[in-house]
Amino acid sequence: MAHLMSTSCSIKISSSYRPCGQPLSQDRTVLPNSFTIKTSKSPFKRLVSKGHRAGRSCVVLATAASVSKEVSANPRSGSDRSPNDSSKPQRVMVIGGDGYCGWATALHLSNKGYEVAIVDSLVRRLFDHQLGLGSLTPISSIHNRLRCWKAITGKTIELYIGDICDFEFLSETFNSFEPDAVVHFGEQRSAPYSMIDRSRAVFTQKNNVIGTLNVLFAIKEFREECHLVKLGTMGEYGTPNIDIEEGYITISHNGRTDTLPYPKQASSFYHLSKVHDSNNIAFTCKAWGIRATDLNQGVVYGVKTDETSMHEQLYNRLDYDGVFGTALNRFCVQAAVGHPLTVYGKGGQTRGYLDIRDTVQCVELAIANPAKPGEFRVFNQFTEQFSVNELAALVTKAGQKLGLDVQTISVPNPRVEAEEHYYNAKHTKLIELGLKPHLLSDSLLDSLLNFAIEFKDRIDTKQIMPSVSWKKIGVKPQTVPAN
Amino acid sequence: MAHLMSTSCSIKISSSYRPCGQPLSQDRTVLPNSFTIKTSKSPFKRLVSKGHRAGRSCVVLATAASVSKEVSANPRSGSDRSPNDSSKPQRVMVIGGDGYCGWATALHLSNKGYEVAIVDSLVRRLFDHQLGLGSLTPISSIHNRLRCWKAITGKTIELYIGDICDFEFLSETFNSFEPDAVVHFGEQRSAPYSMIDRSRAVFTQKNNVIGTLNVLFAIKEFREECHLVKLGTMGEYGTPNIDIEEGYITISHNGRTDTLPYPKQASSFYHLSKVHDSNNIAFTCKAWGIRATDLNQGVVYGVKTDETSMHEQLYNRLDYDGVFGTALNRFCVQAAVGHPLTVYGKGGQTRGYLDIRDTVQCVELAIANPAKPGEFRVFNQFTEQFSVNELAALVTKAGQKLGLDVQTISVPNPRVEAEEHYYNAKHTKLIELGLKPHLLSDSLLDSLLNFAIEFKDRIDTKQIMPSVSWKKIGVKPQTVPAN
Repeated sequence: MAHLMSTSCSIKISSSYRPCGQPLSQDRTVLPNSFTIKTSKSPFKRLVSKGHRAGRSCVVLATAASVSKEVSANPRSGSDRSPNDSSKPQRVMVIGGDGYCGWATALHLSNKGYEVAIVDSLVRRLFDHQLGLGSLTPISSIHNRLRCWKAITGKTIELYIGDICDFEFLSETFNSFEPDAVVHFGEQRSAPYSMIDRSRAVFTQKNNVIGTLNVLFAIKEFREECHLVKLGTMGEYGTPNIDIEEGYITISHNGRTDTLPYPKQASSFYHLSKVHDSNNIAFTCKAWGIRATDLNQGVVYGVKTDETSMHEQLYNRLDYDGVFGTALNRFCVQAAVGHPLTVYGKGGQTRGYLDIRDTVQCVELAIANPAKPGEFRVFNQFTEQFSVNELAALVTKAGQKLGLDVQTISVPNPRVEAEEHYYNAKHTKLIELGLKPHLLSDSLLDSLLNFAIEFKDRIDTKQIMPSVSWKKIGVKPQTVPAN
Repeated sequence: MAHLMSTSCSIKISSSYRPCGQPLSQDRTVLPNSFTIKTSKSPFKRLVSKGHRAGRSCVVLATAASVSKEVSANPRSGSDRSPNDSSKPQRVMVIGGDGYCGWATALHLSNKGYEVAIVDSLVRRLFDHQLGLGSLTPISSIHNRLRCWKAITGKTIELYIGDICDFEFLSETFNSFEPDAVVHFGEQRSAPYSMIDRSRAVFTQKNNVIGTLNVLFAIKEFREECHLVKLGTMGEYGTPNIDIEEGYITISHNGRTDTLPYPKQASSFYHLSKVHDSNNIAFTCKAWGIRATDLNQGVVYGVKTDETSMHEQLYNRLDYDGVFGTALNRFCVQAAVGHPLTVYGKGGQTRGYLDIRDTVQCVELAIANPAKPGEFRVFNQFTEQFSVNELAALVTKAGQKLGLDVQTISVPNPRVEAEEHYYNAKHTKLIELGLKPHLLSDSLLDSLLNFAIEFKDRIDTKQIMPSVSWKKIGVKPQTVPAN
């Protein structure tokens, strides 16, 4: 499939590298002169890349030398965790750590004292190029991001660039980094992307299912005590006419009772891929004793966390387009540029939502309180429910406070989904572990709207409208951007 | 992965071709002098193979000529269906039509007057070569099978050799054959095979899930009225402590009620692949209006159908090995050679079973009574429930009647499964459509045992014991046969 990246990758440091010398909220710090990247090629050779800021270029050295010693020699610096925590997981691999949720999580965990490695193929950035899309915020290369993080905090985040569907690459990352926990964000995560054409539908399921299978095999083979924290989605459940429980439901039927996996009714090839993952993971917990937490996450909004706010080179991506953008973030961007808020169909679609600051908090809670061996634990990871119409009303009100003229239009629903339905999903397990939710507030909406206004010159309004139809998907590859 | 076949294929007619001149139950018939095969290569070229019985060799001609006209010019011969049936499906594509269930079904449908095409990559035969396994019965090449069928009945079954994961190939088969119904047996169908090593686990899920996705896209794009009859498995449900319904269950919960997909608890990467398929198909029925029937089939036993009994070149395969063999068939073979019946663990594992004569009957009933557009219909396709211990007792008794000394041993269970459990699965929908079950009887067991005795010289006892462990599966490719 022409849109796929190769599993081998070239390393290039952006020539637009800007010295990370003006931290927003910390003292001026000394820039590191080198950093370490691990990657893989097939046939396997380990590349160790030493980046030198000589004339803004980066020298990439191929070597067969082991880098494990470099890794273990890194000081476990800056921990704010108790020294009595030796039994707690220390080393966390964040797969998909260059993405929206993954980047914020990797920084948060690093800041909290975990040793963090990011594993990422960077294919999400390729999707933007291929579809003609872009983040509202300018985002630095992963290399500059990590260099900046090191400069500001003194903390090293290791980087492994490669595709987890390549098991040889994944094996090497496991054996090099030796994780105590794996947080797996490394999947194609857009429902509309999975509905563009046959090729992307197949890619989404293959990439997500095989990647997760490989992670499960790597844990079984190399790190059997390692805790898998897997990002699922509330969309796996669909919109049943009964309360949604957290992963399991007790059913009494014909005089007998059992507690069974909650029935799933996913409604895109992306959402289905997460259902497939959940089923595969549950089996390996039972058969192999894998310990796993499935985080059925709601729709994430917001862009700033404590860590990504430290410097503009740490800024997170903010997607507002019809493919990768999600409801609340997209509404704020629309309000900022005077585009009507686009409600799909009747707007009664109700879902669970959470602030990205709660995403990182939830993942940390899951890591700090791991599942038991053999346990397949499911948490519904959101803090509040809203209908699309409710979100539009909230953004309208917040926009008007800022003097914006906010209109709302109904556009034909590109999806196949109920537009008016019952929805009541439980979400108590993370609260019980200690989650302190950031509920959606006027101040957050103000902040998001102001952030969108700050970057409004970067907005491409052609990206805003939905361009992917659930019913019109065909077998012909979509080779040019739909807009 | 080294064990995979390429999507392109070479055509070779077996040099051991035996004239199909001694039908077992029909008059001597004239052999055809040619037959037609369609296949594909990538980049796509259609090959038309004309087989001439000249010195027992076959000439394969590459040509760009369309074969569609040849297809449509074929007389719809030998139909015993009413001429008033014009609204009923006429043209049935049997994917996986060279396999155990697929072959019997293709012949049965052809005999009943349907125009049948077999689509098969023949990879099942490759698995036997790679694992050092073999059918108890000698089976002819697919080419000789079809030539023999034509000779005996005058009926043509078209043959498309290729991999449905290759969408270009599948598109051509759809546009050439124009099916009214697709019966999809074309998956890796062994649970132990999927648990040999990481490579086979990944292959099983990729092959099965992508193949089915491709079939769904082909129907949507080319034949939107085409009815998909998909082979699932009763193993998708696992062994819940409540009654198993047919696909859906009505749940009352916290004062509300909904009918939802029955919860699935599959217990091998193979069974999981079928769950993934079911979820994908259900979504496309809802989103695109696909009409589909998911046949959750139990364990099939027996080997003879009316059609495969007509001539030895039409014989079906009979697997007795630890990878592809299934409980009752394997026990009969074990009894025939004096090998103890191998009960896994406690032997309380209870499943649904059916005679292969009922498999072909059920598929025909599903085709003749298609699902409505947008309907995802689930039938539990079995006729009786037995525990493994009950089967062993039945085979022991039948063997003793034939003078065989039948012993039973318990072997460590290579699977992860409950060995004592509640099991009560509904199976009324196919009965309501008219299924007349062949219940397991002494005479069937006699017949199976005698069949096994007839071919006992072909049995390789090293294949009998289980060689694949659910817990010991690793990432290292198993490159030599386990026995």
